[in-house]
Amino acid sequence: MTSHENDAADTGVLGPRDRPAFAHIEAARDRIRPFVHRTPVLTCRTLDRLSGVRLFLKAENFQRVGAFKFRGATNAVRGLSEEEARRGVATHSSGNHAQALALAAQERGIQAHIVMPSNAPAAKRAAVEGYGGRITPCEADLASREAALARVIAATGAVPIHPFDDGRVIAGQGTAALELLEDVPDLDAVIAPVGGGGLLSGTAIACHGVRRSVRVFGAEPELADDAFRSLREGRRLGPRPPLTVADGLRTALSDLTFAILREEAEGIGLAAETEILEAMRLLWERAKIIVEPSGAVPLAVVLGGRLDLAGRKVGLILSGGNVDLCRNPQCNFWR
Amino acid sequence: MTSHENDAADTGVLGPRDRPAFAHIEAARDRIRPFVHRTPVLTCRTLDRLSGVRLFLKAENFQRVGAFKFRGATNAVRGLSEEEARRGVATHSSGNHAQALALAAQERGIQAHIVMPSNAPAAKRAAVEGYGGRITPCEADLASREAALARVIAATGAVPIHPFDDGRVIAGQGTAALELLEDVPDLDAVIAPVGGGGLLSGTAIACHGVRRSVRVFGAEPELADDAFRSLREGRRLGPRPPLTVADGLRTALSDLTFAILREEAEGIGLAAETEILEAMRLLWERAKIIVEPSGAVPLAVVLGGRLDLAGRKVGLILSGGNVDLCRNPQCNFWR
Repeated sequence: MTSHENDAADTGVLGPRDRPAFAHIEAARDRIRPFVHRTPVLTCRTLDRLSGVRLFLKAENFQRVGAFKFRGATNAVRGLSEEEARRGVATHSSGNHAQALALAAQERGIQAHIVMPSNAPAAKRAAVEGYGGRITPCEADLASREAALARVIAATGAVPIHPFDDGRVIAGQGTAALELLEDVPDLDAVIAPVGGGGLLSGTAIACHGVRRSVRVFGAEPELADDAFRSLREGRRLGPRPPLTVADGLRTALSDLTFAILREEAEGIGLAAETEILEAMRLLWERAKIIVEPSGAVPLAVVLGGRLDLAGRKVGLILSGGNVDLCRNPQCNFWR
Repeated sequence: MTSHENDAADTGVLGPRDRPAFAHIEAARDRIRPFVHRTPVLTCRTLDRLSGVRLFLKAENFQRVGAFKFRGATNAVRGLSEEEARRGVATHSSGNHAQALALAAQERGIQAHIVMPSNAPAAKRAAVEGYGGRITPCEADLASREAALARVIAATGAVPIHPFDDGRVIAGQGTAALELLEDVPDLDAVIAPVGGGGLLSGTAIACHGVRRSVRVFGAEPELADDAFRSLREGRRLGPRPPLTVADGLRTALSDLTFAILREEAEGIGLAAETEILEAMRLLWERAKIIVEPSGAVPLAVVLGGRLDLAGRKVGLILSGGNVDLCRNPQCNFWR
């Protein structure tokens, strides 16, 4: 690796394969502060009453590009050396990471190359292009995506920035929990959704760096319970069929995130699909905020009562708010 | 009138028929502070870009009971003398004022009597009863409502608290704009929705009390343009048929609010129904907050470009967020 700008001198350079330390998350917070929103922490009496838990909602649905992903992408892009940055960055994604990386690159004045399946919704393609991202279309299967990404990197020299299997990204994602504990220092527990595990890994390192006694849980759909089973069985399992409505959580852990979560996560709470949709509806109707299905899974887990948190002060990372409302004029989404 | 608790000594007692002065709004702010949320002021780059205006959104959708109405109800209830309070309060409403008055009364430990048409949605009845309100059913027409309210008052001695034709309520509603200008002192203009005119009257008095040069506009659906026409013609006109989707704005001005707005409001911007729905959709999709149709009318007016505000700093009062999402399982309100 070449040298990285802006890294805290006492922290050491964090490479994509490295496990971040708490100091890397603190360094990430300072590095990305000029570029990200410090999102608010919301409370809602109705949700407290329904859950029997004192909830503190870290509203990453209000983050730029509508999701926490902008934190990790910005940390990775801003940590590149000048030489690396000139080559641009690349990833394959059709989700929030694609938009996040495109905007983070645009704001540093470098090129982002986004490999995206040709069946991705036009709105998502337009959003990436709106942030100056250059799209390389590919087939929808993982092998095609990875082959296309390899070709882009070979042709351009761009630096790959994986959506979660990257220490620099994980460190950036951990800054949401760091801010949450700055605002509410006496939390008993923090719950974050888990898909690939980048957010939950960063959350756990951040929380335990602040105070070892903070309990950290993941929240996962029953239909995508690979993290739950991986941690229970002690070996990393592959993804489940992409059936859950929580489309941000269909991916499986990587070796890096699995290794972090084995040590840092107390457990994973599961939620049924109907519970996820009901939690999302409550956030919309009662907390008056738009949260995407993936971001509602922590609340679904709390309401399901499977974790022993009654009466505790619990932080939930509401990971994002990117939904496309139905545009059919016959569809009244409210009455 | 009997003496009122807590009124600022230099302000004088404000009765229901009195026009509030700026000092009454300041007194209301101090009186209701322990009971209401100080709602945040949100910004959204996308909305700024789309409108060409620097927008500051006063998020009264996050207010208790989901709307600014709790401010006016709380100010009225908390300003009652002990003797008045013992008799309870009464109103006729099937909307946000009913819930607001019920909760404000419950928190002072007194009874609220709510006259409500028997065809009101069960959810609204349940909400009022959940706050301890006692419901008197009536027919849906205005004459039946007023007759039922008169009977309740005769039987109980309860103090009537009108949703907008009441100086104490108007003073309470003005506290939202007062907070907005405390947070963003250099606003060029403030826009509030106008139905009965209580919110807009309080907003205008508050803004001009802070700085006379703040421009104050109302925002009204084209299908409910009685305030627009009343101010243009210089005489108070009655309500239009209740056709607009912005169901909070179907009422007409009272003599009191008309008199205030003739002097204090620079003008009324109109919005078509499709503009209101598009503004609401933008608030949901881009600002990630749930705002009811009435609360989206100010943004619709700005986006319509009918007011000359390009490049200005403009505050919008997002008046409420009470929507009942469709519960038909076939209705996917997002895709």
